[in-house]
Amino acid sequence: MAVPDLALPMPRSRADCETLDAADPLAALRALYELPPGVVYLDGNSLGPLPRSTADRLAKAVRDDWGRDLIRSWNTAGWIDLPQRLGAKIASIVGARPDEVVVADSTSINLFKLLSAALRMRPGRQVIVSETGNFPTDLYIAQGLIAQLGGRHELRLVDRSAVETAIDTDTAVVMLTQVDYRTGSRLDLAALTARAHAAGALMLWDLAHSAGAFEVDLNGAGADLAVGCGYKYLNGGPGAPAFLYVARAHQPAFEQPLSGWMGHASPFAFDTVYRPASGIGRFLCGTPPVLSMVALEAGVDAVLASGPLGGLAALRAKSLALTDLFVALVEARCAGHGLALVTPRPRPQRGSQVSFTLPDGDQGYAVVQALIERGVIGDFRSPDVLRFGFAPSYLRFADVWDAVEHLRDVLATRAWNQPRFLRRQAVT
Amino acid sequence: MAVPDLALPMPRSRADCETLDAADPLAALRALYELPPGVVYLDGNSLGPLPRSTADRLAKAVRDDWGRDLIRSWNTAGWIDLPQRLGAKIASIVGARPDEVVVADSTSINLFKLLSAALRMRPGRQVIVSETGNFPTDLYIAQGLIAQLGGRHELRLVDRSAVETAIDTDTAVVMLTQVDYRTGSRLDLAALTARAHAAGALMLWDLAHSAGAFEVDLNGAGADLAVGCGYKYLNGGPGAPAFLYVARAHQPAFEQPLSGWMGHASPFAFDTVYRPASGIGRFLCGTPPVLSMVALEAGVDAVLASGPLGGLAALRAKSLALTDLFVALVEARCAGHGLALVTPRPRPQRGSQVSFTLPDGDQGYAVVQALIERGVIGDFRSPDVLRFGFAPSYLRFADVWDAVEHLRDVLATRAWNQPRFLRRQAVT
Repeated sequence: MAVPDLALPMPRSRADCETLDAADPLAALRALYELPPGVVYLDGNSLGPLPRSTADRLAKAVRDDWGRDLIRSWNTAGWIDLPQRLGAKIASIVGARPDEVVVADSTSINLFKLLSAALRMRPGRQVIVSETGNFPTDLYIAQGLIAQLGGRHELRLVDRSAVETAIDTDTAVVMLTQVDYRTGSRLDLAALTARAHAAGALMLWDLAHSAGAFEVDLNGAGADLAVGCGYKYLNGGPGAPAFLYVARAHQPAFEQPLSGWMGHASPFAFDTVYRPASGIGRFLCGTPPVLSMVALEAGVDAVLASGPLGGLAALRAKSLALTDLFVALVEARCAGHGLALVTPRPRPQRGSQVSFTLPDGDQGYAVVQALIERGVIGDFRSPDVLRFGFAPSYLRFADVWDAVEHLRDVLATRAWNQPRFLRRQAVT
Repeated sequence: MAVPDLALPMPRSRADCETLDAADPLAALRALYELPPGVVYLDGNSLGPLPRSTADRLAKAVRDDWGRDLIRSWNTAGWIDLPQRLGAKIASIVGARPDEVVVADSTSINLFKLLSAALRMRPGRQVIVSETGNFPTDLYIAQGLIAQLGGRHELRLVDRSAVETAIDTDTAVVMLTQVDYRTGSRLDLAALTARAHAAGALMLWDLAHSAGAFEVDLNGAGADLAVGCGYKYLNGGPGAPAFLYVARAHQPAFEQPLSGWMGHASPFAFDTVYRPASGIGRFLCGTPPVLSMVALEAGVDAVLASGPLGGLAALRAKSLALTDLFVALVEARCAGHGLALVTPRPRPQRGSQVSFTLPDGDQGYAVVQALIERGVIGDFRSPDVLRFGFAPSYLRFADVWDAVEHLRDVLATRAWNQPRFLRRQAVT
């Protein structure tokens, strides 16, 4: 396997990595997270770690706001404004205006809202274009919507490389996840948005593996719609609420079917007829989950704390250095065991993760389990992907070194070949 | 005003109320809640108070499960099963089998799922019957769904008293909230379910003001579908997740459009085609909000703690005694100020709240604000309703006495007539 050029001098030892860490301008950010000793956490793309401020902020929200002030906290603690206030913070992370993002529900639910609204905006067009490898829930939601609308629409699924040519004048909306959850391949958000627009289609981005990991410029790309996840690089905690983005120009005309009372123009007037709020608030539905939002806000604030240190551009630079290093070290030190890189080598095409395959999926699963037992936490994605996320806020170059050494050892000693690492049936 | 018969001897003094409290078999339950000193909390029907165990359980989930065990907690802490495990606990509160209830999303979102599924089950019928006074989000969701389906359906809204006659052979589903959020009027769940079934319609109950307040017997009534709220009498915290119920017999055929990956038969197989889970799990959508569910579980456990003391039947008996007493004391001690009871006097027709109107809505609003300033927390519902919830788990007869004395004083001294109690515009 060819070792790619590193942007940094190739470290030859753990000491070299420690030197890089000592020079890392973002090193101070690690202290914002609670990371268990002895763990190299390469799964922040699945569940971000606990920010150090979360427990206290949540305890305050529970004991003071809920426990002491009770119902009054909807006003006095600003609970009622949380979806918009938190949305505005996330807007600054994804290149949107403050009034273009709101926090609500789950990514799946938000996709349903936006796809519904998009199809109404393009009534003469019947096609949703996406890719076969998109995250399943995105496809399932499109399928559920199409069934509900009577089957008059088509979900056109093509290979990632064929998306551009699949977009045509029947296309109502193009729905893509910018970073592939399996491979870490990253799409050109601006170019694909322009391609969708050239065909008269709307562009809906899923930023699950983008938001908080690197710079996203929704406004700059002229993107119409987006959703994103609160519990990955935004560190909002397990099942944290999601966010959605609707470009300001679309908001007045966009209507969506999940028209709950929190999206009403005047929810406390208790009218019998739904009248959507004027702005992004119309994409709210039920009562906001306050405790989960308080936790999410702590996670978002931890990302925003990178601002004085260079912000998302600096995070991206470090992320690329970490993933460059991981690829180089794995290919140099773990050769001969069948690992094949499936993450694109060109930097612009890479998200913040690195994935390898092993020919035998059961072996791949077992290798990941053996690593987890040693404290190197990545994950496995069927059928054959070993996935390692590199969140630049808290990972060190020395962590990369350690992870690779464990991987090398697990492969070289066949430590993965133990009954306890056998693949079990997936949870249903 | 006529003073109704009290089931208990009519207390003549606070001391009489204290005597009732001393004999209250449920008195010990109050210690399960954190209640601020000096507060009489009559708004547990809007936001239940903080259970004493919530903060520690949430802190444990944050620090140990999320912070230390990270992604592994989906399995080791049982996060993945929370929607069903918690659903089974709530099932025991609403008269359902353990596999008929699941916790997910918000009440509004769950209504959308169940209404969608119900209309598919009755394809030849075009009407959703509900009442004009139903909680607005229920109506808004029905309106959003009807618009989504092309306007072929009708939301038939009639007065609460005319629901039975409005149900006909065009009726696909009857959607009612058992306890009216304004008046506290309680519908006969079994009788109306039978009426819907007699017309061949499905019955969908909103148990927002029922679950945890008194006995509900969904199975006994043969109810088809139900939703309920986690943050009222279940004390799950602000914006807690909601629950839904689907009778076992309906589950195999019921399909709903919010087909997210957590409702898939095999979510971690990452198939490209949605295939619903076999049971109640098919009504899940996105990733469950774990932290909010942990808080909800603490609240549900606090309700279940009533079991050895007589359970929901005992809670109901006390609730009726509390509301009887409140009505009697208000009518005896606050007469002459224009208060008019809008809650039904017959016990079977009453939920766990008491509402009065005042002819001048602005005065009503101001009276509620003046009471809140004195620590007697009820709420006001437009246009003219003063609403007082009586959660039997933590309210004492002496609290009822104190609340009435404050109300009497606020009215007699016109303490409500202050600029700071003026009605502001509702939050939008």
